[in-house]
Amino acid sequence: MNDHNLQHTIALLTRTPATLDALLRDLPETWTHRNEGEGTMSAFDVVGHLINGERANWMPRARILLQFGETHAFAPFDRWGHVRESQGKSLGELLDEFASVRSRSLDELRALNLRPSDLARRGRHPAFGAVTLSQLLATWAAHDLTHLHQISRIMAHQYREAVGAYSAYLGVLQCAGHSAP
Amino acid sequence: MNDHNLQHTIALLTRTPATLDALLRDLPETWTHRNEGEGTMSAFDVVGHLINGERANWMPRARILLQFGETHAFAPFDRWGHVRESQGKSLGELLDEFASVRSRSLDELRALNLRPSDLARRGRHPAFGAVTLSQLLATWAAHDLTHLHQISRIMAHQYREAVGAYSAYLGVLQCAGHSAP
Repeated sequence: MNDHNLQHTIALLTRTPATLDALLRDLPETWTHRNEGEGTMSAFDVVGHLINGERANWMPRARILLQFGETHAFAPFDRWGHVRESQGKSLGELLDEFASVRSRSLDELRALNLRPSDLARRGRHPAFGAVTLSQLLATWAAHDLTHLHQISRIMAHQYREAVGAYSAYLGVLQCAGHSAP
Repeated sequence: MNDHNLQHTIALLTRTPATLDALLRDLPETWTHRNEGEGTMSAFDVVGHLINGERANWMPRARILLQFGETHAFAPFDRWGHVRESQGKSLGELLDEFASVRSRSLDELRALNLRPSDLARRGRHPAFGAVTLSQLLATWAAHDLTHLHQISRIMAHQYREAVGAYSAYLGVLQCAGHSAP
C-alpha cells in the first residue's frame, strides 16, 4: 500500500480541526482574512474549502468507489464551492462547522471497517482515471497538510515586507508550491 | 513599519505552542519522527529548534539590540542547537517545554512596553547587518509560520508514494521553499 496506514491517516485527520482552531480562532483579521492577491485564498477561505471537501469530496467519493468501482467516475469537485459554504459566516462558525463535519466523516469511515482488500479497490477519478481507495484516503490526510502548508504561507505573506532582509532566511516566503506568488 | 503590528505579532506567537500541540501530541511517530532525508529535520527536530530559538535567538537578540544598538552584533545562532536541546526527551516533553519558554518570552516582551520609537531602533545581525527591532519581532512570528509550513511539508512527504497520481494536485509536495527534496 505504498506506506499508507489507515490508522495513521485517521490519527492525522482527527487532529486537523483542533490544529486550525488553535492557530486561527480570534486571531486578528490581518492574519485570517487577507490572501496572497487576486484569485487566491485567505485562511478563512481555506477553512470553507475544507468544510466543502467533507461534504462533497472525501467520504462521498469513497462511497462511490465502494459502490461502483471503476464504472462510475467521481462527481467533479468545485474548488471554489467554499465561497457558497462560507457566505455570511464568521471564522469561529466555520471552525466549529469543520470540527463537526470532520467528526461525522470519521465516524462514517470507521463504521466501514475497511480491510486491506477494500483499500486495494479501485474507482475512477474524473481527471486521471483509476485510483485506489488507499490512495484516496491517503490523499485526504495529505490534503489537510497541503492546506496547513498553504495557510502558513498565506499568513507569512502578510509580513513579507515587515521582516526586511530576514526574508532570505524564511523558506515559507520562497515557496512556489501552490499558486501565485 | 511595513505593516508590522506588534499586537498581531504577539497574537500569533501566543498561539503556536497550542497549534503544534494539537497537531503533533500522541501522533504516530511515522508523522513526527521521520524527516525528508539525510541532513533534514523531522517535526520532532523542529520543535527542538523552536525551543532553542526562545533560549538563544529572539528575546536575547532583542535585548542586545536595545542595550547596544548597532555597536554589538547578535551572537550567531546555532541552527542545529536543537539536537542538544532535544536529547533524551519525548515529543510530549518538548511540546510542554516550548509552551513554557514561549510563555516566558512573551511575558518578557510585554514587560518592555515597546513604543513605536523603540521598534525603529537598530541592531546588527551577524550576517546581513542593520536590522530594526520591528523586523526582528516580525521575523519571530514569520519564523513560527515557516516552521509550521516546514512541518506540514515533512509530514506530507511521508505520504508522497501513498497518494499515487493525486501527488500532482498537492502543492505541499511541489514545495521547494526549504531544503531538499
